[in-house]
Amino acid sequence: MAKQKPSIPKGTRDFGPDKMVRRNHIFNTIRSVFGHFGFMPLETPSMENLNTLTGKYGDEGDQLLYKVLNSGDYLKDAKPEDIEAGSKHLATKICDRGLRYDLTVPFARYVVMNRNELTFPFKRYQIQPVWRADRPQKGRYREFYQCDADVVGTDSLICEAEIVLMINEVFSNLDIDDYGIKLNSRKILTGITEVVGAEGREGEFCVAIDKLDKIGEEKVLDELRSRGFGEDSVEKIKPLFHISGTNEERIASMKEFLAESETGLKGIAEIEDTFAYLKDFGLENDHVDFDITLARGLSYYTGAIFEVKVNNVKIGSVSGGGRYDNLTGVFGLDGVSGVGISFGIDRIYDVMEELDLFPKDRLETTQVMIVNFDKTAERYSLGVLAKLRAQGISAEIFPESAKLKKQMNYANKKGIPYVLLIGSDEMESGQLTMKDMREGEQTKLDLDGIIEKVKA
Amino acid sequence: MAKQKPSIPKGTRDFGPDKMVRRNHIFNTIRSVFGHFGFMPLETPSMENLNTLTGKYGDEGDQLLYKVLNSGDYLKDAKPEDIEAGSKHLATKICDRGLRYDLTVPFARYVVMNRNELTFPFKRYQIQPVWRADRPQKGRYREFYQCDADVVGTDSLICEAEIVLMINEVFSNLDIDDYGIKLNSRKILTGITEVVGAEGREGEFCVAIDKLDKIGEEKVLDELRSRGFGEDSVEKIKPLFHISGTNEERIASMKEFLAESETGLKGIAEIEDTFAYLKDFGLENDHVDFDITLARGLSYYTGAIFEVKVNNVKIGSVSGGGRYDNLTGVFGLDGVSGVGISFGIDRIYDVMEELDLFPKDRLETTQVMIVNFDKTAERYSLGVLAKLRAQGISAEIFPESAKLKKQMNYANKKGIPYVLLIGSDEMESGQLTMKDMREGEQTKLDLDGIIEKVKA
Repeated sequence: MAKQKPSIPKGTRDFGPDKMVRRNHIFNTIRSVFGHFGFMPLETPSMENLNTLTGKYGDEGDQLLYKVLNSGDYLKDAKPEDIEAGSKHLATKICDRGLRYDLTVPFARYVVMNRNELTFPFKRYQIQPVWRADRPQKGRYREFYQCDADVVGTDSLICEAEIVLMINEVFSNLDIDDYGIKLNSRKILTGITEVVGAEGREGEFCVAIDKLDKIGEEKVLDELRSRGFGEDSVEKIKPLFHISGTNEERIASMKEFLAESETGLKGIAEIEDTFAYLKDFGLENDHVDFDITLARGLSYYTGAIFEVKVNNVKIGSVSGGGRYDNLTGVFGLDGVSGVGISFGIDRIYDVMEELDLFPKDRLETTQVMIVNFDKTAERYSLGVLAKLRAQGISAEIFPESAKLKKQMNYANKKGIPYVLLIGSDEMESGQLTMKDMREGEQTKLDLDGIIEKVKA
Repeated sequence: MAKQKPSIPKGTRDFGPDKMVRRNHIFNTIRSVFGHFGFMPLETPSMENLNTLTGKYGDEGDQLLYKVLNSGDYLKDAKPEDIEAGSKHLATKICDRGLRYDLTVPFARYVVMNRNELTFPFKRYQIQPVWRADRPQKGRYREFYQCDADVVGTDSLICEAEIVLMINEVFSNLDIDDYGIKLNSRKILTGITEVVGAEGREGEFCVAIDKLDKIGEEKVLDELRSRGFGEDSVEKIKPLFHISGTNEERIASMKEFLAESETGLKGIAEIEDTFAYLKDFGLENDHVDFDITLARGLSYYTGAIFEVKVNNVKIGSVSGGGRYDNLTGVFGLDGVSGVGISFGIDRIYDVMEELDLFPKDRLETTQVMIVNFDKTAERYSLGVLAKLRAQGISAEIFPESAKLKKQMNYANKKGIPYVLLIGSDEMESGQLTMKDMREGEQTKLDLDGIIEKVKA
């Protein structure tokens, strides 16, 4: 076979050791917070039947689904007219499966399939890759991980409050301090459309207001006009952009604004209860802003919605979520309310890199490397190596007696903090030379001393 | 949209919390052993370009590759004659990417693409799913995880010895005691074909001898005959099945047998050196058997080969690997020798289940659940919950004041060891009722006492 110059598909990435160690730091932090709040792990298959995925993400989503070719003679049952009908139609004949587009639909599918075995409320987290046939660009990939936690089978607002707590714990554990959590309710957005005389046009209102950050107030109002909102409605909407004061004051203003909307007032009451729970938990509005201009795109949200942004970093939201009343309805199970949160690992990674927040010491690596001088030293060193490892210390020997410079370079590149040099003097005296690679200093210690120092 | 009865693709699996926790126990054990020996994590994309994958796994492997349909109008460039040429040909026009079939080829591809940045020897581990369009059956799935560790860029036999050490450490940490590691060398198998007058027919010899366990000695010899091995060769091969004694004695016998084969003797010397290294490490043939009937299928092995079987469990090998001299050659980088080991997580899971080796206590779950009696108790309980969590304790409150039986059932199903019952007496006195769900007993303790007991 001809030799190839290898490459990887556009929009996908290899994660070498340096990146993996940093990504694992983020994954492990999130995973441990999820566990801390009683969420349990779940994994679903990478492939789902296409009829599970299709129609769940809108027309655009359907186009971004990766489809997997049926195995074997996949054209067997395709008729000539299927082929003539073009790509879209033929795909339904030759592909039964597609790659997961998000973790929410597979989760809903799992809940429905296992409804008789599960104990509700069911709290699960799921950290797996998803695939989208999107045009790759900076920060947008065709394969990327999602980190989701959801609780289904209860409408208790304690869950909303705990999502806020989890967000705070994740960012605090990652040393990200300067961020804001926006909190709103879909019910409030519905209420607004009712009050301004645009009942039933919540979808259009959300799409427009969602762009506020990007295009500003005037253009949002223009968009509403062009979508057919009357000048009357627009005039009533205007003051909403200028509601100010503390969370309590803004809630009070909105309560007045929504006085005529039952749904709107229910949304307000839920936001109030959520803040009250946060207070019971001992959290006084920490990082949380009630923001009625937060809309979030996904149409299945029906209650609280969340979004997290890191301040002074030009990147979109790093986390978001909300409550949905009927996620499993499409699979035939109605009345399962739930609320969930998703962390965007790639963006969090970029934020931490930009703010220089990754721990300076390499987080996972060999702690001790033994230099390999020659065959005699090698034999002695293997015994030392076995003893270090028996103490739980990650250790290795350079496998060949290469030039010292090459061996030290290896240790350096790998971020190994301690290097042992064992030559004839050391073998005779039992006092081994240990170099601290960060400080540059060398000391002579016996094996017990070395173990003690490395473990400290 | 019509409501669907959801299902998952044949040969794929959901892993709910119970299974995930057990699988994570195995993954974490293997990952930590890999790290202990200085291996660093790597992840590659799920999709590879099909020209990276095709031709690397033989004809059968090519047929088992999952191909991903190009996005958009994938038929755009397909001519009518491409369609008439049938499934196999058309696939090359409409699919540029496929799902990873194993972790070895992507690793080789990664090494070649990053050869200028990597420091050799490069020790990496990789734990990711792979996909094969195989016929699903008991223990064979279309999506399954592989757990591989490889070191490339050195031919030091210390690496072979360390693979044996890693195998021992993994199984010891999983409490699997009764297993055997078979060790052989491809060079010895080559040497045998030379010595018996069947030079160059090592492939056929390996295929036949690989079936020894399944079909027995006589049928292996028959197969050799039917593959054209002369009676002369067969007679010379016969005694090989009856070589007995300790590892040292068997090595000595084979040294005699292979006296005329340079390659064979080199294989013997490598096996001897590997055993010598194990001795230097302080390991005296622990679980290791030199077994010249071990062949292993993969054609890229050129040196040592390993295989691990658990005794008294009817399941194939649970781990295997070997040395290859030219894995990256197909991607244009020659002379990179490496050696690797792969653990079969699904089989290890089945073995542990059959031998009842999973820890009895649920490994990862909420440690304390607070029962939710009513609104007043709820508010008090949230403060208690916050304090438990601040101590690093995984804790949750049942989010609604449901019937006590339902709440206790939830705790029970989730394997939560401690349940707190906080009613009006408890709120008044500060002495909270704690139920130990395993013992069934209830005690009254203040919060500090509870924290102490849970942490113990």
